Amino acid sequence: MSLVVLGTVALDHVKTPSGAKKDMLGGSAAHFAMSARLFTDVHLVAVVGRDFPQKHLDFLKRKGVDLTSVQAGKGKTFRWRGEYKKGDLNSALTLATELGVLANYVPTIADHQKHLPNLFLANIDPDVQIKLLSMMKSPQLIGLDSMNLWINIKLKSLKHLMKQVHLFVANDGEARALTGESNLVAAAKALRKMGPRMIVVKKGEHGVLFYSDKLMFSFPAYPVDKVIDPTGAGDTFAGGLMGYLSKAGKVDEKTLRKALLYATTCASFNVEGFGMAKTAPLSMREVQARTDMLTKYFSPV
Amino acid sequence: MSLVVLGTVALDHVKTPSGAKKDMLGGSAAHFAMSARLFTDVHLVAVVGRDFPQKHLDFLKRKGVDLTSVQAGKGKTFRWRGEYKKGDLNSALTLATELGVLANYVPTIADHQKHLPNLFLANIDPDVQIKLLSMMKSPQLIGLDSMNLWINIKLKSLKHLMKQVHLFVANDGEARALTGESNLVAAAKALRKMGPRMIVVKKGEHGVLFYSDKLMFSFPAYPVDKVIDPTGAGDTFAGGLMGYLSKAGKVDEKTLRKALLYATTCASFNVEGFGMAKTAPLSMREVQARTDMLTKYFSPV
Repeated sequence: MSLVVLGTVALDHVKTPSGAKKDMLGGSAAHFAMSARLFTDVHLVAVVGRDFPQKHLDFLKRKGVDLTSVQAGKGKTFRWRGEYKKGDLNSALTLATELGVLANYVPTIADHQKHLPNLFLANIDPDVQIKLLSMMKSPQLIGLDSMNLWINIKLKSLKHLMKQVHLFVANDGEARALTGESNLVAAAKALRKMGPRMIVVKKGEHGVLFYSDKLMFSFPAYPVDKVIDPTGAGDTFAGGLMGYLSKAGKVDEKTLRKALLYATTCASFNVEGFGMAKTAPLSMREVQARTDMLTKYFSPV
Repeated sequence: MSLVVLGTVALDHVKTPSGAKKDMLGGSAAHFAMSARLFTDVHLVAVVGRDFPQKHLDFLKRKGVDLTSVQAGKGKTFRWRGEYKKGDLNSALTLATELGVLANYVPTIADHQKHLPNLFLANIDPDVQIKLLSMMKSPQLIGLDSMNLWINIKLKSLKHLMKQVHLFVANDGEARALTGESNLVAAAKALRKMGPRMIVVKKGEHGVLFYSDKLMFSFPAYPVDKVIDPTGAGDTFAGGLMGYLSKAGKVDEKTLRKALLYATTCASFNVEGFGMAKTAPLSMREVQARTDMLTKYFSPV
């Protein structure tokens, strides 16, 4: 079933120990879409500036992403410049952020898309997330991601939002910051109490922890021995997760485990190349092959 | 089959956010023995001081640990005083170390124990480890653990030793320090090149990574939401691992996965109480029940 994603579409300038790349297509919603499109049809809700390269739009279209609700705003595209230092590829150092059209973004969505059943609010200002959520008619599965910035400056909006979503995705640092719990199992339980009935704590190279009232489990990450660029790995992970759940149309235990396996696979491809170098050419066959390998790799018996 | 363990037996003084305890039975070999004894008969090779409480020796004996090769040295028992700060229960802050009888320890082992098939060299001076290894007649499975101190001051001895063992156990920090690789998959591969054909990287709350030429896999940790005292968790883990492998008498894939599951279970009990508060009363039935739960928890499908 169809999936709407709201979030950022950005031009990224990234430096890692493996090199540097400019003007790459990036942003939370773009990375999310690049893995979610493998599982279901994806409707992107976002804004880009007048300087946004047509080739990136064409590329997204070619990948099957619906761009009906992508606005071309007055001003420049959101830009992010970041660096990952040798020895700590888990955490990005933000060197510069230019909000551009994001600063005054009011989301709009086409009428026919308001009835779509699955919604993911990828990382963007929580007030923008709230606005889009209020426009949707009857979403059956709502997922939410955020970041430390919003925890720091828009906590009230974020908490309000958490009460209205089913699935909350956070990385380890965000889970700790939001709950004050350093233990991640305790943090997951505390996040559950804040509203969402499904909690997904992403731990980067250490895998993922899932928590709900009835079910808790962990998976390690796929063993990547050379991380090229982790930018967007969390969004790519969320795209695989929500993409699979949207396709399945249910959230029972078996489906959730499978969805998190596919998510792990998608994220592993993401970190193996700059930007979308590895996720853009992906076919479902390759994703399936690595997921099968992962299933064997994780197997306790 | 029987298992010999060389390492420290200590009196620990530990402070954690949950409280503080003095004069607890501790040390690498003692924690190791406390989980290994659940699987096979364990022969302890260690030294204690004249001040060592008889009750601790009686306790070890009651747990079935063979103390034939435990020397009573002239001087005081090795003492360790450490603290874990709130928010970072993964890393111990060493406040004081009194080597006592460890300073001049020359290991001895009874003749009949020299022929035992399984040997674990728990964390202690690598030169002491080398000495005991040279006394053993024909060990079939040799495991080794160490610590950052020896990587810093006795690297040559440690490297020499690594060429002679089958299984090497390291925590993430040690794996990185020994190889210069920050990526743990890359670090595991580099450790393999240093000699041991089986590499086990312990990641604390993030689980474990196993690496050999033919097999690589990861498990997350058991989800403990309140860590009381992590002291000895790595040794307890190694005890479960070597204990199970010694009992099985083989190291095929199925056996290795099972051994690491049991090791994970043993370590999870360790962190739930001070010192050996939770591991000392453990029966195989409780270990089996948690391992069964863990098997389900880890299952990818």
